[in-house]
Amino acid sequence: MLPVIEVEERVRYSETDQMGVAHNKAYFEWFELGRTEFCRRRGLTYREIEAQGFYLVVVEAHCRYRRPLRYDQEFIIRTSLRESTPKKFVFDYELLMKEDGTLAAEGSTVHIVTNRNSQVVALPDPLRLRIAGD
Amino acid sequence: MLPVIEVEERVRYSETDQMGVAHNKAYFEWFELGRTEFCRRRGLTYREIEAQGFYLVVVEAHCRYRRPLRYDQEFIIRTSLRESTPKKFVFDYELLMKEDGTLAAEGSTVHIVTNRNSQVVALPDPLRLRIAGD
Amino acid sequence: MLPVIEVEERVRYSETDQMGVAHNKAYFEWFELGRTEFCRRRGLTYREIEAQGFYLVVVEAHCRYRRPLRYDQEFIIRTSLRESTPKKFVFDYELLMKEDGTLAAEGSTVHIVTNRNSQVVALPDPLRLRIAGD
Amino acid sequence: MLPVIEVEERVRYSETDQMGVAHNKAYFEWFELGRTEFCRRRGLTYREIEAQGFYLVVVEAHCRYRRPLRYDQEFIIRTSLRESTPKKFVFDYELLMKEDGTLAAEGSTVHIVTNRNSQVVALPDPLRLRIAGD
Repeated sequence: MLPVIEVEERVRYSETDQMGVAHNKAYFEWFELGRTEFCRRRGLTYREIEAQGFYLVVVEAHCRYRRPLRYDQEFIIRTSLRESTPKKFVFDYELLMKEDGTLAAEGSTVHIVTNRNSQVVALPDPLRLRIAGD
Repeated sequence: MLPVIEVEERVRYSETDQMGVAHNKAYFEWFELGRTEFCRRRGLTYREIEAQGFYLVVVEAHCRYRRPLRYDQEFIIRTSLRESTPKKFVFDYELLMKEDGTLAAEGSTVHIVTNRNSQVVALPDPLRLRIAGD
Repeated sequence: MLPVIEVEERVRYSETDQMGVAHNKAYFEWFELGRTEFCRRRGLTYREIEAQGFYLVVVEAHCRYRRPLRYDQEFIIRTSLRESTPKKFVFDYELLMKEDGTLAAEGSTVHIVTNRNSQVVALPDPLRLRIAGD
Repeated sequence: MLPVIEVEERVRYSETDQMGVAHNKAYFEWFELGRTEFCRRRGLTYREIEAQGFYLVVVEAHCRYRRPLRYDQEFIIRTSLRESTPKKFVFDYELLMKEDGTLAAEGSTVHIVTNRNSQVVALPDPLRLRIAGD
């Protein structure tokens, strides 16, 4: 079964817009937070991946907004790794209202692995399996 | 034929991240810029839509990143309205490098129409047709 | 003695820029986070202040950057209320590296109290003292 | 007399917050835009400064907010270079409503010159004078 990593966050004032709700771009920052914690808790920080000379470049991002999130509301970012190959990762995300578990948004990001010169490369298995392994 | 509105922008320093390229969230702000100009040039500013009590709430957003955009690079945001009904709008976007017209990214956003109380309502045709009409 | 409220945060990837450090604007979002927690822990959430019809509008902001903060680094936001009168609040902030307590940045924000029509008003003492009282 | 460079901008929707005005952090992005254009029009893009291995690191930033800027409002960023030595630059900024020239905000940023290893260095005069020279 796929591991799911949860992180709690609160909506920042600076993330709201004049509609009075979190702006659509904030969700992609939250997905990134979820991804960062996913890697850390699986055993390899994303910081270390970059230190080793690899980048997980976002090539696609998608979000479906279900319920607005408001300033100071607490929510949970649930992240899972749907797919991983040496050259490609796909992460799925769900944002849930902390109060009652309502689904606020869901989305995904697709990443390719590159080196420092932006060339597509394979992430060596010993590294990859620290994130994706059983 | 569908009208396509073009706006020119440059990548801001604050839009880059430590990979040295524009961060994935910036593209959604650029889509919004394109949408704002689309409405203005079609004849109804988005500001006026909100002043009339209507909101085009984003319920879905998608972006495919083709080539990285770098600090200070000039690019063009091409916006078109793929679909419009009284309660729903779908916009398409293309970001092109200004230098050589290369496609840097493409995406779309889906919007529902709500009133100030977040209830789904119909945008009256006289307003809608100022954006979507021939 | 003045109460000092501490919050822990980590630098988000989206907060870095191509210099490889947190962008200067991020610090003002962190100051705001510190302020939000200051109010909450003193006994009156900022959300409630706005619900009562009052706004603490920023009229001045200042930051001195001492040491760069990098992606994923943990730091502490220390917030204190230097001055409060019915129409004006001044908050001070210090950002400290969590690892060794080094000062990464320090700053302040000055706020005036307004109502929903942007008119300067006095924040009633029963509300104000829940934040500023002994 | 000191040169003053002006750039026109519009407030983006994503730059507003739930108060219905531009968020305080946006002003620091606008200052940066002004600085970028100042360097470009004086004859040396900031991109080129970094390509030569130098960084103008922000060590202090200050803003005084006079009048709120709202979504879609046009404004002018006026940038001037108050002080420049081989190791330090100080820029001043004024934001003016385009409509009537009202001062919306004013501020400044202080920068030190560093190399790629974050060591303080002197910006060679031939480069510096392309920005700061008569």
